[in-house]
Amino acid sequence: MTDITLTQAQTVVAAALAKAEEAGTLMNIAVVDAGGNLKAFARMDGAWLGSIDIAQKKARTARFFNMESGAIGELSQPGGSLFNIEVSNGGLITFPGGIPLEVGGEIIGAIGVSGDTVENDRAVALAGTEAL
Amino acid sequence: MTDITLTQAQTVVAAALAKAEEAGTLMNIAVVDAGGNLKAFARMDGAWLGSIDIAQKKARTARFFNMESGAIGELSQPGGSLFNIEVSNGGLITFPGGIPLEVGGEIIGAIGVSGDTVENDRAVALAGTEAL
Amino acid sequence: MTDITLTQAQTVVAAALAKAEEAGTLMNIAVVDAGGNLKAFARMDGAWLGSIDIAQKKARTARFFNMESGAIGELSQPGGSLFNIEVSNGGLITFPGGIPLEVGGEIIGAIGVSGDTVENDRAVALAGTEAL
Amino acid sequence: MTDITLTQAQTVVAAALAKAEEAGTLMNIAVVDAGGNLKAFARMDGAWLGSIDIAQKKARTARFFNMESGAIGELSQPGGSLFNIEVSNGGLITFPGGIPLEVGGEIIGAIGVSGDTVENDRAVALAGTEAL
Repeated sequence: MTDITLTQAQTVVAAALAKAEEAGTLMNIAVVDAGGNLKAFARMDGAWLGSIDIAQKKARTARFFNMESGAIGELSQPGGSLFNIEVSNGGLITFPGGIPLEVGGEIIGAIGVSGDTVENDRAVALAGTEAL
Repeated sequence: MTDITLTQAQTVVAAALAKAEEAGTLMNIAVVDAGGNLKAFARMDGAWLGSIDIAQKKARTARFFNMESGAIGELSQPGGSLFNIEVSNGGLITFPGGIPLEVGGEIIGAIGVSGDTVENDRAVALAGTEAL
Repeated sequence: MTDITLTQAQTVVAAALAKAEEAGTLMNIAVVDAGGNLKAFARMDGAWLGSIDIAQKKARTARFFNMESGAIGELSQPGGSLFNIEVSNGGLITFPGGIPLEVGGEIIGAIGVSGDTVENDRAVALAGTEAL
Repeated sequence: MTDITLTQAQTVVAAALAKAEEAGTLMNIAVVDAGGNLKAFARMDGAWLGSIDIAQKKARTARFFNMESGAIGELSQPGGSLFNIEVSNGGLITFPGGIPLEVGGEIIGAIGVSGDTVENDRAVALAGTEAL
């Protein structure tokens, strides 16, 4: 198992911060490692306090299932095959903003972003993933 | 109360692992006893980390109510008679993959499987139950 | 980071079970991976229910700090440098019975054993580590 | 209330990382804001997984009571006036390594460091505070 380095994690956070500033949004940005454990975090000045936990849960959710957090949310709706999966693992966040981090086809961690609309959250997370 | 033995639980896990390998899936497999307490567990290499907890919750859910986890999920939808029962008991998982383990008409525990689609999860769990 | 395989984890559990049977004790045995996540578990028939959680917490504690759980307990006593560290990480167990699992000088996970005196718990855990 | 900025928090983390590297230790470094909420975090490669939570709890403990975490630990011993205060607030860590962050006589947040002996943890945290 290849694990993300702190240098890689800080590069991801910096790229996400740059994207958030460009977009004029205030974000919480979390990076977890291959084991789902917190590696780096940054909260922009004035960003929502409630998003500290959500950003981390998005990142963990993406790593826990090796897919975007929003992909799980599509299956966890009423009538869906994973209804209420969110109560597991101490709380999952299954709307967009969590994306696995890959290098050379291997998942080495994940990023989670929260602070604005889920579209903006995901765009900032995506910018983070592209920095690797 | 007849309770599952470790030998039985390991037989169930081994049968589920064999089925998972045959199906080419990566699973987390949990067996709980008649009291709903963890008896045996195995996570295949590369299986989802988020499924560690879900496999255990599926097994407990099946034993807590002596029916398949998915049967509860049919009643816990919006408007259903058990809406949001998932928040009880420290978190239930009510989609398929949890099945009671019976011997001689008596429930002695349950198996919970998580790691792929709910259809595959249930098929692997079913293979586990058939080993008894 | 090298991670423990399921085959390795099951070998460790089997060796610990053999040692427990030889010693005439009833044990809960947990193995966590390099990320501190549950990999394999077995509870012997009649073993303490309260030790299900303790065995897992001992294993996590050993991996969380890359040392035996009991080594932390020596520092967490009243007046010690790590007094009450046990309230962190959702609960640590700092008496003996948790030991890191090493291969080639690298820690790939940990074993935690609970069910008897801490001396016996540790002896069974040690037998597990020696199987690698 | 004057609150720490992300730029200040990142400066504190960078100074602590530099001190940790100089000292040859592997640390988890957390900075919380004036409200006690996580602002920035970094885990060095190979640093203890169990210290992710402890670093954050040290920082919060220092801000919650506007004093070093270790100062509370002196009062929380058996027979002391704050015996077992550690069980409050979802878990406090009251040994050294958490220090308030002050600017112009006003506390704007706190740093928490964990990963080595409490003496080294505190030395790295102190280096972080001196960067402001």
